[in-house]
Amino acid sequence: MPELDRKAAMQLQCPMPQLDFDIITLGHGSGGVLTHNLLNSGVFDILKNDYLDQHHDGAFLPVRSPVAFTTDSFVITPVFFPGGNIGELAVYGTVNDLAMCGATPRFLSLSFIIEEGLPMTEFWDILVSIKFACQQANVQVVTGDTKVVERGKGDRIFVNTTGIGEIHPKAHIAADNVRAGDKIIVSGQVATHGMAIMSVREGLVFETELESDTCNLYPAVEQLLEAFGADIHFLRDPTRGGVATVLNELAQDCGLGIDLVQNDIPLSEQVEGACEMLGLDPLYVANEGIFIAVVQADVAGQVLDVLRATGTGQNAAIIGAVTVSHPRQVILTSSIGGRRMLNMLTGEQLPRIC
Amino acid sequence: MPELDRKAAMQLQCPMPQLDFDIITLGHGSGGVLTHNLLNSGVFDILKNDYLDQHHDGAFLPVRSPVAFTTDSFVITPVFFPGGNIGELAVYGTVNDLAMCGATPRFLSLSFIIEEGLPMTEFWDILVSIKFACQQANVQVVTGDTKVVERGKGDRIFVNTTGIGEIHPKAHIAADNVRAGDKIIVSGQVATHGMAIMSVREGLVFETELESDTCNLYPAVEQLLEAFGADIHFLRDPTRGGVATVLNELAQDCGLGIDLVQNDIPLSEQVEGACEMLGLDPLYVANEGIFIAVVQADVAGQVLDVLRATGTGQNAAIIGAVTVSHPRQVILTSSIGGRRMLNMLTGEQLPRIC
Repeated sequence: MPELDRKAAMQLQCPMPQLDFDIITLGHGSGGVLTHNLLNSGVFDILKNDYLDQHHDGAFLPVRSPVAFTTDSFVITPVFFPGGNIGELAVYGTVNDLAMCGATPRFLSLSFIIEEGLPMTEFWDILVSIKFACQQANVQVVTGDTKVVERGKGDRIFVNTTGIGEIHPKAHIAADNVRAGDKIIVSGQVATHGMAIMSVREGLVFETELESDTCNLYPAVEQLLEAFGADIHFLRDPTRGGVATVLNELAQDCGLGIDLVQNDIPLSEQVEGACEMLGLDPLYVANEGIFIAVVQADVAGQVLDVLRATGTGQNAAIIGAVTVSHPRQVILTSSIGGRRMLNMLTGEQLPRIC
Repeated sequence: MPELDRKAAMQLQCPMPQLDFDIITLGHGSGGVLTHNLLNSGVFDILKNDYLDQHHDGAFLPVRSPVAFTTDSFVITPVFFPGGNIGELAVYGTVNDLAMCGATPRFLSLSFIIEEGLPMTEFWDILVSIKFACQQANVQVVTGDTKVVERGKGDRIFVNTTGIGEIHPKAHIAADNVRAGDKIIVSGQVATHGMAIMSVREGLVFETELESDTCNLYPAVEQLLEAFGADIHFLRDPTRGGVATVLNELAQDCGLGIDLVQNDIPLSEQVEGACEMLGLDPLYVANEGIFIAVVQADVAGQVLDVLRATGTGQNAAIIGAVTVSHPRQVILTSSIGGRRMLNMLTGEQLPRIC
């Protein structure tokens, strides 16, 4: 079943229960009766698992050491956007950060900061998306927290997820592993998530709606780790700051240079058009549903074959290589053959994109 | 050195570096150059440790399974209050939740949601407090995230901490362990934190300033676990909702009744006076620096002796007992001998107290 149909089916399977309140109020964050009513109104039920059912201040978890540990707070606006909402974004965002560590995502914490007045229907839809995304990503929400702030002291809802993953036995991911000659692969079309959000904010209308590509990247990463192990030198999802910023960070961290070829960077016509209209460079636009892999040159072709056979990697491409020739710099060969340096994102191109 | 002197010394040891910006702007949350400038302006230095230095999307951690895992978002207002600020509160709050699981706190994630316009001096003071609290609690911030929202879409700063602890080998903490006859011990005076915050908000003036008791409770918990092991049946810090709410939750979870004796509940004159002035019941006021232990009756006296010898437990007291006689209810014998049922907190007595 395609992803969107599965989401619709999930919404149907999880109707909101009858409640004696329509909106979330300050009292729902008090820790008292109203907080219990909110949590017992279906929150615990919908996220149900043995660890969460312990109902303690924290969860007791069996893990295999070493673990990967990562956190993200999500403040995206609008909270509901084409292709998703803040709930699944918060799950996939943290799951993907674990995947980029070469870790199998296992457990999430989930913390809400809700602005007083949020309609319960919106909160419910977010919860259902979280449940759906957790099932997709095979992770469990095992502990959580809910705070409510006054009107005008928040913005509908902020979500923090923090994740624990178990390092994949074949993974050895670190900027230090990157060598001159390594190939740089991107797993899909760039700038999709950022432009889907910007299109809504700017009221752009296209023939087909531009949708966020937010998804679980771990299945693709797992296949690469299984097949190529330590030949996968580095992984990173180019979220805030985009591909250009992440590759600049890598160049700084490994002390080598990076050459990119603009014509090789996968970009949909629709996203390219939206970027042109808004005067944005797609290499600085935030992504959610793609990752960058830096791999041993002699396996790069095979990596591409494996990636393209996965659900999320059909548009994967080799977009450049690591070089000794201009240490700590990222140089782009443009579509008309010129070469220019790509710096990190300066300023704030797209606030609150995740 | 007393706690407050140590805090002052820490502030002196960590002067804010010279920066080319005075306030935090949206760009500092972009993930680009400004975010790097902010993090490299001293954030990484001040929180420095080997795990954080990996500078990856997540940290790689060695842990001993099973672990405890807990999360809290802190939205307290005001951000700076007598006895502390949101920074140390966020560290101790999560450290204490781990302690209540019978776990030795090990690692924290740290995530900021900052409202555009926060003065850098305030952010720095919060960071220094986080560093100080982490040293006190022997935990390390190993991964983090910084988001910035527009003016009017947040409230200065919200902080999420999520913690990993290792279960103490002698700990066996669960509501299921609680038995009729168990004694209920509180480790210190109740309602101090909540009334310190409320006094500031309401502009109450006392002869000596009423200060939050926020602190690391793990050292006291560790001593109890070492000395009494599985005779410590249950631990919980009575934060939001106060002692009455937490004991109601326990009564629900274990299916037994709880008898409390009002005269035995430690309460400072100053806090009692503040509660009377504001019409608040101290048993519903939020706490930070105390915990409740439910222990095997025959060791209760010794537990009290051990607690009173710790830095945070001088005012510890046995305040009640578990009973079969009124299952799932908490009954208070008042100072004049009457008996009344204590329910959970209803409504929102003290919004944004943590």
